[in-house]
Amino acid sequence: MTEKIWDLIIIGGGPAGITAGIYAGRQKLKTLLVTKNFGGQVAEKVIKIENYPGFEEISGQELIEKFKKHLLKYDISIEIDEVKKVTKEDQIFIVETVSQKKFSALSVIVASGAEPRRLNVKGEREFLGRGVSYCVTCDGPLFRGKKVAVVGGGNAGFEAAIFLADLTKKVYILEFSDKVRADKENQELAQKTGKIEVILRAKVKEIKGENFVKSLIYEDLSSGKEKEILVDGVFIEAGRVPATQFLKGLVDFNERNEILTERETMATKTPGLFAAGDCNEGQVKQIITACGEGAKAAWAAYDYLQKIKLNS
Amino acid sequence: MTEKIWDLIIIGGGPAGITAGIYAGRQKLKTLLVTKNFGGQVAEKVIKIENYPGFEEISGQELIEKFKKHLLKYDISIEIDEVKKVTKEDQIFIVETVSQKKFSALSVIVASGAEPRRLNVKGEREFLGRGVSYCVTCDGPLFRGKKVAVVGGGNAGFEAAIFLADLTKKVYILEFSDKVRADKENQELAQKTGKIEVILRAKVKEIKGENFVKSLIYEDLSSGKEKEILVDGVFIEAGRVPATQFLKGLVDFNERNEILTERETMATKTPGLFAAGDCNEGQVKQIITACGEGAKAAWAAYDYLQKIKLNS
Repeated sequence: MTEKIWDLIIIGGGPAGITAGIYAGRQKLKTLLVTKNFGGQVAEKVIKIENYPGFEEISGQELIEKFKKHLLKYDISIEIDEVKKVTKEDQIFIVETVSQKKFSALSVIVASGAEPRRLNVKGEREFLGRGVSYCVTCDGPLFRGKKVAVVGGGNAGFEAAIFLADLTKKVYILEFSDKVRADKENQELAQKTGKIEVILRAKVKEIKGENFVKSLIYEDLSSGKEKEILVDGVFIEAGRVPATQFLKGLVDFNERNEILTERETMATKTPGLFAAGDCNEGQVKQIITACGEGAKAAWAAYDYLQKIKLNS
Repeated sequence: MTEKIWDLIIIGGGPAGITAGIYAGRQKLKTLLVTKNFGGQVAEKVIKIENYPGFEEISGQELIEKFKKHLLKYDISIEIDEVKKVTKEDQIFIVETVSQKKFSALSVIVASGAEPRRLNVKGEREFLGRGVSYCVTCDGPLFRGKKVAVVGGGNAGFEAAIFLADLTKKVYILEFSDKVRADKENQELAQKTGKIEVILRAKVKEIKGENFVKSLIYEDLSSGKEKEILVDGVFIEAGRVPATQFLKGLVDFNERNEILTERETMATKTPGLFAAGDCNEGQVKQIITACGEGAKAAWAAYDYLQKIKLNS
């Protein structure tokens, strides 16, 4: 049995992976796209997307349908599966999936995204899109003049709170440990807003409401007592979990397990392996930036392929 | 008279500038967008755009109309004018226009684009979009199996020719001087394709055709004789002219007069001054990448503004 060697395998079917696929398809690369599903975080969004240029207001599902239809215009193979492991032997990448399939390719673009870390508390799932959010820049503007809580006292939590302080009346930051993990600068900026109150040793127990969030219950770990704060929104900034562990050994990670990349080509430390969108270290996690990075990665992959093919 | 100080001035109304404007608008920055016109190179495109994710096929005019409508949803001021000069005094940028207006701002995003350098020969304008192209990646796939000429023997010309060699039957590179200016690697790659013929000391005189391009006339500077080659397409890679000279002193340029930027934030060497899209050194000049960079620049500008406001 002769094994097929793809020019390019794209891992992930969100905005970055789909854009990489469109560009690879246009360049006539023999491309396989492996993904669990289409859309990634975009498909999960409950609130309309208003910041993808060209669509003033569109649901995540609708946008992803358009992306997918656009992708499928090109001659690209799709495999609905989850990647378990990627290795490289000589110049060939081997991509293994959870359903025990193996695919070979000369280059790989990882666009496997990231998922917000869930709190797994009562009300979190129920009020998603009705007060509970994992994306302050997406949903923050809906809470103008209201009171909100941010769960997480790291840099992401503080940055979310600083962003929200501009819009809202009051922002609580709830941090589980006994000290804030955000850096000094963010702490100072937060203090200067005059609107942010940090609550340490707070363990979130429940998010309550009727149609919409009304309050948050936490355990004060110092006293052991349960306390309630009245808020209209709860932003969860408990970290993100990039889906990158299957790349161990091939790439370097930052402290958030995001893949380190050269920021113009999205190249990782392994030649022929690129990473675009939320799985990498990029600071701006937006649909339009993920798409831009997908295009840049496809471009760089094409360039890489052309060089290895002509030199072989 | 009290002078208004904007949070942000965006220079340019193409994809990068419009996306920056959408993001700035969403962040409620007091924003002024100064541009000669909307659309930049996109509005000029004769051939349909097929590589902006979400729109399988759309004309440049239509896409720009959608972009513009999206932008105008937000509270942003627009000034139709051309920027002549930008200076910075203390923390304030002064933007001067050709019609003698002056605007002040705390931050500036330059998204002034770039224009392909024209040959200014007979037929060039007439056959634009009918065989003459300034964008090989946009229009190259239309010339599958045909003969084409690339005008320009620098890296851009060679890269265009290598790209085209994959699709077309034959590619001529016409170079004015007596030696190729492309680097060794590109020269070797071009040779390996077996399809590229380099013609040195060739001065393009005319592009001829009927409905569509049929041939190119050049003067052989060695013999002084006029020669004709039969081609279906002429790709002009005589360099690009980024509209960046009004920034002299505030930014560094590469050898193509493109603005040097940090590739994640699009920051230039002057704090508060960012550059997105084709006016900067980015290697991939696409609508989607320009948009991604516009979003990244707006994000970084917002971050910059928040810091200077809280520290003042």
